[in-house]
Amino acid sequence: MAGSTFGTHFKITTWGESHGKGVGVVVDGCPAGLSLTEEDIQKFLDRRKPGQSKFSTQRKEDDTAEILSGVFEGKTTGTPISLMVHNKDHHSKDYGEIASCYRPGHADYTFDMKYGFRDYRGGGRSSGRETIGRVAAGAIAVKILEQMGISFVSYTRSIGAVSISSSPEELLSEPPAEIARNILSNPLYMPEMEPCHQAQAFLETCMEQKDSAGGVIECIITGVPAGIGEPVFDKLDANLAKAVFSIGAVKGFEIGDGFSCASSTGSKNNDSLTMKNGRTSFVTNHAGGILGGISTGAPIIFRAAVKPTPSIASLQNTVDKNGKDIELSIHGRHDPIIVPRAVVVVESMAALTLLDLMLEQMGSRMEYLQQFYSE
Amino acid sequence: MAGSTFGTHFKITTWGESHGKGVGVVVDGCPAGLSLTEEDIQKFLDRRKPGQSKFSTQRKEDDTAEILSGVFEGKTTGTPISLMVHNKDHHSKDYGEIASCYRPGHADYTFDMKYGFRDYRGGGRSSGRETIGRVAAGAIAVKILEQMGISFVSYTRSIGAVSISSSPEELLSEPPAEIARNILSNPLYMPEMEPCHQAQAFLETCMEQKDSAGGVIECIITGVPAGIGEPVFDKLDANLAKAVFSIGAVKGFEIGDGFSCASSTGSKNNDSLTMKNGRTSFVTNHAGGILGGISTGAPIIFRAAVKPTPSIASLQNTVDKNGKDIELSIHGRHDPIIVPRAVVVVESMAALTLLDLMLEQMGSRMEYLQQFYSE
Amino acid sequence: MAGSTFGTHFKITTWGESHGKGVGVVVDGCPAGLSLTEEDIQKFLDRRKPGQSKFSTQRKEDDTAEILSGVFEGKTTGTPISLMVHNKDHHSKDYGEIASCYRPGHADYTFDMKYGFRDYRGGGRSSGRETIGRVAAGAIAVKILEQMGISFVSYTRSIGAVSISSSPEELLSEPPAEIARNILSNPLYMPEMEPCHQAQAFLETCMEQKDSAGGVIECIITGVPAGIGEPVFDKLDANLAKAVFSIGAVKGFEIGDGFSCASSTGSKNNDSLTMKNGRTSFVTNHAGGILGGISTGAPIIFRAAVKPTPSIASLQNTVDKNGKDIELSIHGRHDPIIVPRAVVVVESMAALTLLDLMLEQMGSRMEYLQQFYSE
Amino acid sequence: MAGSTFGTHFKITTWGESHGKGVGVVVDGCPAGLSLTEEDIQKFLDRRKPGQSKFSTQRKEDDTAEILSGVFEGKTTGTPISLMVHNKDHHSKDYGEIASCYRPGHADYTFDMKYGFRDYRGGGRSSGRETIGRVAAGAIAVKILEQMGISFVSYTRSIGAVSISSSPEELLSEPPAEIARNILSNPLYMPEMEPCHQAQAFLETCMEQKDSAGGVIECIITGVPAGIGEPVFDKLDANLAKAVFSIGAVKGFEIGDGFSCASSTGSKNNDSLTMKNGRTSFVTNHAGGILGGISTGAPIIFRAAVKPTPSIASLQNTVDKNGKDIELSIHGRHDPIIVPRAVVVVESMAALTLLDLMLEQMGSRMEYLQQFYSE
Repeated sequence: MAGSTFGTHFKITTWGESHGKGVGVVVDGCPAGLSLTEEDIQKFLDRRKPGQSKFSTQRKEDDTAEILSGVFEGKTTGTPISLMVHNKDHHSKDYGEIASCYRPGHADYTFDMKYGFRDYRGGGRSSGRETIGRVAAGAIAVKILEQMGISFVSYTRSIGAVSISSSPEELLSEPPAEIARNILSNPLYMPEMEPCHQAQAFLETCMEQKDSAGGVIECIITGVPAGIGEPVFDKLDANLAKAVFSIGAVKGFEIGDGFSCASSTGSKNNDSLTMKNGRTSFVTNHAGGILGGISTGAPIIFRAAVKPTPSIASLQNTVDKNGKDIELSIHGRHDPIIVPRAVVVVESMAALTLLDLMLEQMGSRMEYLQQFYSE
Repeated sequence: MAGSTFGTHFKITTWGESHGKGVGVVVDGCPAGLSLTEEDIQKFLDRRKPGQSKFSTQRKEDDTAEILSGVFEGKTTGTPISLMVHNKDHHSKDYGEIASCYRPGHADYTFDMKYGFRDYRGGGRSSGRETIGRVAAGAIAVKILEQMGISFVSYTRSIGAVSISSSPEELLSEPPAEIARNILSNPLYMPEMEPCHQAQAFLETCMEQKDSAGGVIECIITGVPAGIGEPVFDKLDANLAKAVFSIGAVKGFEIGDGFSCASSTGSKNNDSLTMKNGRTSFVTNHAGGILGGISTGAPIIFRAAVKPTPSIASLQNTVDKNGKDIELSIHGRHDPIIVPRAVVVVESMAALTLLDLMLEQMGSRMEYLQQFYSE
Repeated sequence: MAGSTFGTHFKITTWGESHGKGVGVVVDGCPAGLSLTEEDIQKFLDRRKPGQSKFSTQRKEDDTAEILSGVFEGKTTGTPISLMVHNKDHHSKDYGEIASCYRPGHADYTFDMKYGFRDYRGGGRSSGRETIGRVAAGAIAVKILEQMGISFVSYTRSIGAVSISSSPEELLSEPPAEIARNILSNPLYMPEMEPCHQAQAFLETCMEQKDSAGGVIECIITGVPAGIGEPVFDKLDANLAKAVFSIGAVKGFEIGDGFSCASSTGSKNNDSLTMKNGRTSFVTNHAGGILGGISTGAPIIFRAAVKPTPSIASLQNTVDKNGKDIELSIHGRHDPIIVPRAVVVVESMAALTLLDLMLEQMGSRMEYLQQFYSE
Repeated sequence: MAGSTFGTHFKITTWGESHGKGVGVVVDGCPAGLSLTEEDIQKFLDRRKPGQSKFSTQRKEDDTAEILSGVFEGKTTGTPISLMVHNKDHHSKDYGEIASCYRPGHADYTFDMKYGFRDYRGGGRSSGRETIGRVAAGAIAVKILEQMGISFVSYTRSIGAVSISSSPEELLSEPPAEIARNILSNPLYMPEMEPCHQAQAFLETCMEQKDSAGGVIECIITGVPAGIGEPVFDKLDANLAKAVFSIGAVKGFEIGDGFSCASSTGSKNNDSLTMKNGRTSFVTNHAGGILGGISTGAPIIFRAAVKPTPSIASLQNTVDKNGKDIELSIHGRHDPIIVPRAVVVVESMAALTLLDLMLEQMGSRMEYLQQFYSE
């Protein structure tokens, strides 16, 4: 299992620690013939880059991706694409004092229990920097999916108690590219301005109180054809759940109406089917675009709950490696909220999952095989 | 990917349709030397058996498991355990009228889009009967885990708007075996009597209105040692999320405080560590027993949201295979709620996930290898 | 790993022991829409059935395959196909005396070392009966491949020192179906009559001497398009090597000129390319149809060396479970040679391997994805 | 499948092309706590480094490995180890003339058929340089296995018609470390001097004739405990066969007596068991240390046939991309034989395979789980 590899057909393997030489990813199984440049990757990495606003860590990293293999004359060759980002601005000495204690809300204690010791510098492998590899790979997956008419709209739905008011359906009244532009125009990646300002005010209070906040990320995928996803264990929603839950701070995942389904009734929750412009379609989308683990053709809608950043400057009780109760205050450069920077990570994981299942789907019927091999 | 196989070390493959000759599972990678009888399996199957109360389908199935291989003289041999349950009481003719139309909330349409046609009898492969294989395998996993001091407490937290009032921590004031007895003593598998009665009244109303209900299942796992789970993609919570989300009607999954983390703050949400009886422990358990994807040693707590049964007797709008809008009323024997019968499925999937990662953990340190191979 | 599952897209899981209730296989990932009956499977099973001639075990088994799932109205549904053969004529008491000792050339000792004990009846899981599941699955794979113009010619090349004289190329002067007919017309499955008679005489001598013999199986696959196989670890020849070597008694595997390449030179061993009827083709086929792990379009040719049956009636030295040196003479019903019955097992494993990589190939280029998803 | 990843527990992913920025490997699942330095890796890479003698390509590469992650304070952390070797001395212009034609014996044609085009510089991904990643990972696997008392002796058995005369058993009369020293003392990595000189003379003739040669590599693994390997598809010998066959020029693989078993008889080929110094042991080792896919405790012995280097300077017939018959003479720096440099690649692949199955074995019995989790 090992655990640093994700996907079956479009398979990624990430590596690297916060304060090592760098972080990277190997993407294996990328179809040959895709135009790909380092700029394609960079656009995605920039969405998670630190230091963009006062609400993200002031660590200065260019986070510049280098393509080391798998691209020839501007096109993917079908062989592994190795991508690397060098670490630069790491202040390892900042972490000297936490080497011997367990920060609450972090993986310090669990890593020690698992491996006997840990690379404590900046969280080592459990650092958010590990997600750079995911985002670099996600950029490739999204580019491939776009060429098949699939679009992603990913944003911050809420921060603390502040939430946007539009439903996904309401947001979709505008074209995906338009919504994306709105989202990227503000540092919290919210698609509505009013809650965005409220959230900023809330975050400033958090920071004054040496505290941190969490929030909810929502992702809408449009253009997915019906039929994607495997019916039993590799359901599209099950694989999305795993993909998104594998992101460090995620504590909840739901699809369509999610937890509110539990208090609904069958007659309200079922989405009626109807013919519309000669095509089978759904009157509502409580299901979030997936039935029986397989895409319906309606937009796929899911949400992830992200916990407040565990690194806070206020005093906390904890223990050290020698089993002594101590008090700890975490200094250094930390995001008061990681939700905005995690938006692109969620989108990336969703794209990797979807593409993998779309590749699987190509062999699902005898007629597909016969067509393919008769050409 | 194929999709009917789950797990890496303790690997299960389910097969079978609602109205075929039977359903079954092959369990590969079960350690040799476990005492195992058909009764061990049966106890678990009985918890999901239909016809137990008026709130579950009146389909009469013995659901008797037969062990076909992998057990010799009462012990597992280390080779695949093949388990089968024959289908008996299937009224395929009940389904004649739905062969040509798409039931709302079901996988009829998506299966047709995926495969070009489907075994429409009783939902075919997308029927809840597929979970028999999961539960049979889960019974084995739970038995193994019990021998390592691990206990499962799984129950219905809410049905519709009716919820139990105790927190998992409050429930855990009693020993797991005691709570389990309480839960199994009522048809809704709720650990508190008052909400159980309210929920029964609510369900009766639902049935009168030809409607159905959903609910929330909660699972607590105690005795899990710290250190289980892989740090990146195969996080314990990510694999649990996938495992639980692969169950048909699940629409949401959360761990620990889950979605409510999103509106908390770091200072409230972080669980302080402290020394207690000479052992590192956590003052609170907002994290639900997992940090950085690895178990902390505290109880693992998660919840799954289950949608209302999509099969309802009241009239619904839908389309048929020829692209015609029609009205449909679903007859036959259907659960007004599937939550109680799904409790053991959730527990089974959790056990399979946990055991798989516990097997993985055995090779995580050089000292473990040296100890093992020096013996 | 677990080890009873083979394949990624077209994935099979076998189960069962020689003297348990039966043996079987679950085939997951079979494309939907293939016509499939139990007769399709039976034709293949009959090629490995015991009791066909005096050169195979006199155990009487119908070896009748039952399809338990995955086929609806005569067609595969895309969901798992569960196949089972019940064990009938097992004389478990024959094995009482070997329960406590280790037969030379068998897996008795290694199973005990691995699992602590074993199902000793008839070899348990290490029995040749395990291959029934492979052959049943292979029958499906071959049927699919035939519909894409791919043919298998598999036969006994040699038994003991007796070998056929024709090269694969010479055999291919006749159409595959014709050669297949010849091969199946004699109990040793040799494509030439003269060596077949010599081999029968040799085997009779072996039997008189209470001894056994080995041989070489050759397999030719025609009609495979160029481009199948993954360039690094999942090379077509590497996966074939594993597939064939996973059959019990195989001790060697070679492709094309195989071991004789080692004493050839580059100028002789390289296959020149040339245009022939407007198509790129190869003047010779020393490579056996694979270059760099990828099919060339030329016939794929490989051989497997099969050791003599380890069960012999003459006296052998060995040890028992209590660590005592003993003498052993194996009674019961045993094949003096397993080569002929293994021919169809080799073919089946080759078909499973090839089909799996052909499914993988469908996602190898952006143009394939775009074509597939624009339809 | 994708194909650039090998292993389940100890999982490696290689990347890189001959003339790209570099080649590398990510090793995931390495146990924590292993002392590891770049020198450990370098020792192995030096055994396959070009330019060591006149019998290997004169391409000058330092082939210096850099550890990019997964090691902290001199020890592996349990997280992925990323290793990279930069490409330096690549003369891409040498390859201009072969960009548009298909070299016989190379993967040029098959890559084009698979992907539509290829990185033609130096063979791109199908270059022998890909094996650098395997050897770097193999160095780690061998180091781990050594700490469990397992030794590898790998060497050239034959070149062209020249073969060493000692059997593996005879070689093993000296301790592994001594044999290894002998082997590394000559450029052909043969353990006997006389055939080594003959082989050198033969190779000089080959070079004068602008031709190339092949040979056989043999590998002996001592100290492997009984019980390693999974009984059905993941047999130790099956996985070794795949591992070794996935190396570019390998055309044959055999274990123990291999192909010569086919003409032996059961009474000669079976290895008798006997008690020796109170331990079960085998009188002979025709089986090569594996029965039923599981190690017996005797030395594991296998051989791989390597074809002659396909790049030869003499004139060859082939076709170009436009479908025109042409004549081709390959210039540039090429090995007249690749066998000696491939020895360490074979050893590396064997070590990776063995370690992976040894990790799997740790969860094979209930008593192992109980022991591990009671500590």
